[in-house]
Amino acid sequence: MNELDSSRLRDLRIDIGRLSGRLEALAQIGDTGDGGNCRLALTDEDRHGRDLVVGWMRDLGLEVTVDTVGNVVAVYPGHTDGPPVMTGSHIDTVRTGGRYDGNLGVLAGLEVIETLSAAGVRLPRPVAVGFFTDEEGSRFPPDMLGSLVFVGGMSIEAALDVTDSDGVSVGAELDRIGYRGAAPCPAPAPFAFVELHIEQGPVLEQEGVTIGAVTGVQGISWQEVTIDGQSNHAGTTPMSMRRDAGFAAARAAVAAREIAKDIGGFQVATVGVLDLHPDLVNVVAGRARLCLDMRNIHEQELQQAERLMATSLERIATAEGVGISVRSMARFEPVIFDLPVVDLIEDVARRLGHSTKRLPSGAGHDAQMLARVCPSGMIFVPSHRGLSHNPAEYTAPEDLAAGADVLLQTMIALACWEGDIPQVSPTGGAFNRSERGVGAPIA
Amino acid sequence: MNELDSSRLRDLRIDIGRLSGRLEALAQIGDTGDGGNCRLALTDEDRHGRDLVVGWMRDLGLEVTVDTVGNVVAVYPGHTDGPPVMTGSHIDTVRTGGRYDGNLGVLAGLEVIETLSAAGVRLPRPVAVGFFTDEEGSRFPPDMLGSLVFVGGMSIEAALDVTDSDGVSVGAELDRIGYRGAAPCPAPAPFAFVELHIEQGPVLEQEGVTIGAVTGVQGISWQEVTIDGQSNHAGTTPMSMRRDAGFAAARAAVAAREIAKDIGGFQVATVGVLDLHPDLVNVVAGRARLCLDMRNIHEQELQQAERLMATSLERIATAEGVGISVRSMARFEPVIFDLPVVDLIEDVARRLGHSTKRLPSGAGHDAQMLARVCPSGMIFVPSHRGLSHNPAEYTAPEDLAAGADVLLQTMIALACWEGDIPQVSPTGGAFNRSERGVGAPIA
Repeated sequence: MNELDSSRLRDLRIDIGRLSGRLEALAQIGDTGDGGNCRLALTDEDRHGRDLVVGWMRDLGLEVTVDTVGNVVAVYPGHTDGPPVMTGSHIDTVRTGGRYDGNLGVLAGLEVIETLSAAGVRLPRPVAVGFFTDEEGSRFPPDMLGSLVFVGGMSIEAALDVTDSDGVSVGAELDRIGYRGAAPCPAPAPFAFVELHIEQGPVLEQEGVTIGAVTGVQGISWQEVTIDGQSNHAGTTPMSMRRDAGFAAARAAVAAREIAKDIGGFQVATVGVLDLHPDLVNVVAGRARLCLDMRNIHEQELQQAERLMATSLERIATAEGVGISVRSMARFEPVIFDLPVVDLIEDVARRLGHSTKRLPSGAGHDAQMLARVCPSGMIFVPSHRGLSHNPAEYTAPEDLAAGADVLLQTMIALACWEGDIPQVSPTGGAFNRSERGVGAPIA
Repeated sequence: MNELDSSRLRDLRIDIGRLSGRLEALAQIGDTGDGGNCRLALTDEDRHGRDLVVGWMRDLGLEVTVDTVGNVVAVYPGHTDGPPVMTGSHIDTVRTGGRYDGNLGVLAGLEVIETLSAAGVRLPRPVAVGFFTDEEGSRFPPDMLGSLVFVGGMSIEAALDVTDSDGVSVGAELDRIGYRGAAPCPAPAPFAFVELHIEQGPVLEQEGVTIGAVTGVQGISWQEVTIDGQSNHAGTTPMSMRRDAGFAAARAAVAAREIAKDIGGFQVATVGVLDLHPDLVNVVAGRARLCLDMRNIHEQELQQAERLMATSLERIATAEGVGISVRSMARFEPVIFDLPVVDLIEDVARRLGHSTKRLPSGAGHDAQMLARVCPSGMIFVPSHRGLSHNPAEYTAPEDLAAGADVLLQTMIALACWEGDIPQVSPTGGAFNRSERGVGAPIA
């Protein structure tokens, strides 16, 4: 590529009007009337959304393939036939979803290709955009099912047999909505994968930063803690004779916070579920249940948090005379993205004049599945008030444009990348891609 | 009364077989099939229970009166026509009630009279046994409604207009079941009132004590605490940016325990209700609600607990950046029983060879209403595992017999008491009966 071509590529920008128009059009399907969207995976609403997006892909003259689990990939050819630089996300939503989570990544990818196409630009490598089946997992567990199958983390047979709460299978629904395709799973690995997504957290907005260069996805530990004490009269039972499951639960929730603060860094811990039984004002709770959500980008710190929590629970059980049992609901190791991709995103953002910050993702994304098979990264744009999975989810148009432009320029750079991308972790060390991402993650 | 009479009276004992038989017969009405009873106030089951007990009263030849709120009193005449020494309790139950709460006090009172009657004994003063309408308050608020009206703490008009959750009034139900009587409310004050009741707490059983000499009824403070924070993603929201209503609620529950321990003595504090919203494992709670039950026999310490809790809540609100509002759900000052009555119960118990302990009642009882108008006290017998309002409620027959014998001998002593009973509080000071028991209490 000569100097003139290079300069012309660097000046390319997406069309925010066109991107916003597509976001708006897609949001009409499964509109919940309160600004939100409900397009649960493989429902009629999902089918209509898929049809709309596939129509746009075909309008651009792209080669569209549907694989055996319903993932859709559209390829814009390059000068060579090698593996494409890929982007994408999902268009299914949770029951009370917003209009940006997932959709932005898919439609911004389409916008990248339309921008290249409209400029008559071909790049050395092909460029692809896809949307993955059932990322949210709201209907069919696990979440990120489509991308998990795409990278070979789950067999296609197992995926097709997954059923929803009514006993309807993925396979049956794919047949019904006409999205059981022929392209094989696992799919060939792309050259690289970059996903644009709203942050789903408050960090970028609160710090006034436009572009997040995502370093990885937090490891997750979900534990259900059940406490058995002795239900008793709140007036007649002296404090010294209590075996109060409610107090033990409260003490455990406070301990979780203390542990997160002590470990510091990226460690978070949340008790968002806490039930007392019998749940009466004048009865000491005989039973309590809480769910503990702990996450960290560093596996060793997450294990430390789990150990400290176990010790705390033992102490609480002994002090209060209650029985405490712990069940692991989910456990996934952290995923780290590729340092060259993270560096590239940050460089591109700065070149385009945007403030930028490296941060981990607290939520799960399709990109973490792709990270198992190719160099991968993510671009975050601010979420107003950190809201997502919520009709009030909002990202300002200028932030959408900034994110899509960073995606465009990052994909151009990757499509022009000479040779292979070195496997380097964000912490600087080498790492083995095949060891990443054990188990399915959580959105 | 001569020496011989006096000795004969001191040797009188109740018949536990007869008492147990009546407890068993009453428990057949509203039998829930699991050892428990359901005779909600003024239902058909309550009517059948009333008819059974009134039948027994009439069988003993007692004069039975029903007052305008349905309280039933049976009088065994004395040598004089003065105010009677009264005992009694209630025969209504909660929805999942046991067979001793209330019933024991009524049927032991009947047993006292039958014992006197069978022995052909008349005492200087009349002896009365009654059962009060709607003590539990499970159907019509407030609890202890009947005894509250009996002592003039609530007008009969207001009481008759109270409705249940279906809009049915006390007055209509009294008419329907035939228990709207003609005796006036408020009623003339008895000479003294003593109530036998199961402890409804674990203290006596755990300490191996047979007879509790009840010093009073704890004051009660019920507060509903509502916490408004910010709902957010549990993975993507850094600890430093959280306004976690769930954590604040847990911290408040721990603070309540710390305050109760710091104050010590009879102070108890319980958080038996704690709800988080949206109650999802991966969402920081945006809202929490908890109910705080604090009780103490000493009003000043209860006020201290309330002040310390308010300060704690302010600190938690500031530290976590949440809004905390507090609503008083109920607030009743402690009731103290009369030292001469408490002393008498303790003396009688010792004379009969029973271990005894002074303790306050953590639950509300009809006796605390009567304490507004006459010298009053209570006798507790052990509750197995402290259980009450529970089909598993149980007191051993030997403890039932011990309690009923102490009641018998206490009532004999009161019926023979020469002159007035001095107004002395259990802490030794004089007190003004009319200042007692502000507001309606809680069971």
